[in-house]
Amino acid sequence: MKEVHLFYAPQIEISPLLPADEASHAIRVLRLRQGDPLLVTNGKGLCFDCRIASLSGKSCEVEIIKELKVERTWLSGIHIAIAPTKQMERMEWMTEKATELGVDSITFIESKNSERRTIKTERIEKTAVAAMKQSHKAVKPIISDMIKMNELISTPFEGQKFIAHCYDFDSAEKGTSLHSHISSAKPFLFDLIAPKRDSLVLIGPEGDFSIDEVKQAEAMGFKSVSLGNNRLRTETAALSAIMMMQIKKANIHATSL
Amino acid sequence: MKEVHLFYAPQIEISPLLPADEASHAIRVLRLRQGDPLLVTNGKGLCFDCRIASLSGKSCEVEIIKELKVERTWLSGIHIAIAPTKQMERMEWMTEKATELGVDSITFIESKNSERRTIKTERIEKTAVAAMKQSHKAVKPIISDMIKMNELISTPFEGQKFIAHCYDFDSAEKGTSLHSHISSAKPFLFDLIAPKRDSLVLIGPEGDFSIDEVKQAEAMGFKSVSLGNNRLRTETAALSAIMMMQIKKANIHATSL
Repeated sequence: MKEVHLFYAPQIEISPLLPADEASHAIRVLRLRQGDPLLVTNGKGLCFDCRIASLSGKSCEVEIIKELKVERTWLSGIHIAIAPTKQMERMEWMTEKATELGVDSITFIESKNSERRTIKTERIEKTAVAAMKQSHKAVKPIISDMIKMNELISTPFEGQKFIAHCYDFDSAEKGTSLHSHISSAKPFLFDLIAPKRDSLVLIGPEGDFSIDEVKQAEAMGFKSVSLGNNRLRTETAALSAIMMMQIKKANIHATSL
Repeated sequence: MKEVHLFYAPQIEISPLLPADEASHAIRVLRLRQGDPLLVTNGKGLCFDCRIASLSGKSCEVEIIKELKVERTWLSGIHIAIAPTKQMERMEWMTEKATELGVDSITFIESKNSERRTIKTERIEKTAVAAMKQSHKAVKPIISDMIKMNELISTPFEGQKFIAHCYDFDSAEKGTSLHSHISSAKPFLFDLIAPKRDSLVLIGPEGDFSIDEVKQAEAMGFKSVSLGNNRLRTETAALSAIMMMQIKKANIHATSL
């Protein structure tokens, strides 16, 4: 059975024309023809079984046959905010994997030890769209521009708020897995995630959040958590947090956890 | 506090000389001097507090001060076998992240729908060593060459054996998250992982294992599992499986799961 491809057209409910880059992909790469089936999502949860109505030059018009019932496969919101790495490739890779696994939003933080003060979210958006289509999802993660740490922690969020970092305020030094025989005194994120409440996890830069930032976040209701005993790069930590949320909030787990 | 770097010297118990590339890194990149502290691991679970004893030209000799007690932070073996992707970059990313998260072995499978029939494990090894050092681990994952599927499933393994794939033998067609309203009939890998028994998970190529391969694996004691409702790329599926094993087998979870 020939694979039916998924296209992204945010305005599909208003206009039957595919966006230029999507049309180009349909015409020139996939060589679709009039009558060929395709799926079209608006990236906000709607997905339609469609057919190519007409193709000309650079434009492609579709005909909607029916709306598909699409359920998000996780029970509550999965949100991460991350201090971006200097290397954009790592953030693109993270965005691709986060989108495949399933994430509702990715926000970039400007924190004291951030490796970057600005980020071109355009590249991140393209990566998210491509991953959404490849993984047959109907929801594109919302990608937010850089926001300063103090603004982020003051932004209202209805749900669980967590901040991951390496400090143990009970002991004077940062432990590393080679030197510390004391497990982190912070609770393990996985244990705290609620299946049915939205969750937000803050992931710091390689140099970690500053102690002040952690204290301020805690004062704003963020709970300090550990991601486990391993020393993870920023982008790996983000995926680790997303995986934990995916497991706890998975629909198939409604009764067993 | 200046960071103490971790070096990889598989023969450290026999010879105090760092391997050539490690020596080069110490001398030319980090510019270490006589008396400077460093950590050295043999990649097989031993790690030593050392000092630079002498440097000359391209060689670097260390003095072992003491052996550090290093505990693996997961309770039982985490093993994956994966049909490698055509793009080596994806396998390198996966190896880096798998090593950061913690994995005991990565084996490459030649399966019916594999995108690759051969793989240069040398590049994968370099990635694993670099990630081991960066993440301050004392154990390097064992990287195994390509092995044919039928040989792999016949190789004795003392522990749990799982095979992840997209078939539901109860229903005729493969479900995708956009079309199928029936959750996979296969059990969820996360639910089956035992904290204290070694576990091996087989991850197929983008085109999945063949039905015959799955049936043969099941006949050899592999349990068919689902990795959840999301459609994951090969390398993402591998990391997802490793994350699940890390959570279930984490030392800090000895009592709570």
